[in-house]
This record gives sequence, C-alpha cells and structure tokens, in this order.
Amino acid sequence: MNELALVGNHMEVMPEIIDGKGAKAVEKRVLIGPAQGAPNYIMRHFRIKAGGYTPDHSHPWEHEVYVLKGYGFLRNDGNSIPIKSGDYVFVPAGEQHQFCAGDDGIEFICVIPKYGQ
Amino acid sequence: MNELALVGNHMEVMPEIIDGKGAKAVEKRVLIGPAQGAPNYIMRHFRIKAGGYTPDHSHPWEHEVYVLKGYGFLRNDGNSIPIKSGDYVFVPAGEQHQFCAGDDGIEFICVIPKYGQ
Repeated sequence: MNELALVGNHMEVMPEIIDGKGAKAVEKRVLIGPAQGAPNYIMRHFRIKAGGYTPDHSHPWEHEVYVLKGYGFLRNDGNSIPIKSGDYVFVPAGEQHQFCAGDDGIEFICVIPKYGQ
Repeated sequence: MNELALVGNHMEVMPEIIDGKGAKAVEKRVLIGPAQGAPNYIMRHFRIKAGGYTPDHSHPWEHEVYVLKGYGFLRNDGNSIPIKSGDYVFVPAGEQHQFCAGDDGIEFICVIPKYGQ
C-alpha cells in the first residue's frame, strides 16, 4: 500500500517570491512536504539574490541547512558568520537568525519540522 | 539558554566508508544529527563513486534527498529512474530503494528521522 518514490527537479517547482516583511529578494520552493506525502519534516529550496536576505527572526523550531551555491552570511547572536557552498548550518529552535546573500546570491536547502510551516 | 547556530563544511566531517553488505564505494558523512543537537531529523551527505551503489533495501522511515552533483539512478519498484544534480527524491517509509552512481559519481543530501539511524 506504499506510494512509490517521487523524483522531481527543483526548477519545476513554482517559487514563492518573498519581498517585504523583513525579507528581500527571496525565492522559496517547497520540494518535499505534506503535499508530497512527507510525514515528519519539510525540504525547501531557497534562492536569495545579491543584496537579499531572509527575515531577522526566531521561532520554536530548528533549521537544518546545506548551502548549494554562492556565499553569504548567517547573522546570529550579534555575529555575522560567513557561509558558502558545501557548508551546513544548524539553527537550534529559538535562536535568532537571518540569512544574507553575498555578491553572487546564495542557494540553500533548508529542512524544518512539519509543524514549522 | 539556547545553543548558538552551528556552521561547518561537509569536507571537514570524517566519512564512514561503506563497502560490502550490499553497498559499494559509498562515503557517508553525518552533518547534523544528535551530536550537533538536532532533535528531530538527521542531515547526511553521501558521495558514491562511479560504479558504486547503496544497499537495495527498505526500512520503516522515509528519505528526503537532494542531488548536489553528478547523476545516477534510483532503483524503486522494478524501475530505474534517472536522477541528476538539482533533483529532489522522496522515498516513503517502507519503499524498496537503491541509489546507483553514474559515470561521474553522485553526491546527495539525505535526511532521515532520528529514529532511522
């Protein structure tokens, strides 16, 4: 009674453009979530253009991130930590965080628990 | 009382080399798991050299995968599905699956629930 495995390309997924409310020039794509049958956690793809950023915020769920392309900065607890392709980032629940793109933009995967939508 | 965010590079993580017991030429790195404070799910990095493969198996937990580099095949339910850089793969719990590298090898992120170790 299992569903078969599902394969797709991230570029086939319609992005949500996030501009405003503390964010700038962010494209978000939900790759694997409840609509694909994921029971526990959600894989999203983010692309932030040069000069863009995600909101400076915190929330009661964690982020597990892997940087795919480009470079940028993670702002956390008063620090600005360089991040680049090949890096992983763990943001614990409750931690303030903001992802900022470098001059070439940045792309990353970010996984959250399903209750973190 | 929160821990700060954690940043590292996947190449700094010592790989587990998996060769035998149905696998060939697989390098596995646990990037974000219990040792890093992850409470719910585990992010791993896999590199499979050309001609290599993961075991042909199933288990009662899901995989959420993103292909980073190269190409290969997902074997599932009698099919051999091409996968390449930029693709995502959702393998539901209980589904038979095997990842096989193409001629250039393949690298991917694979996220599992923490009870799937």
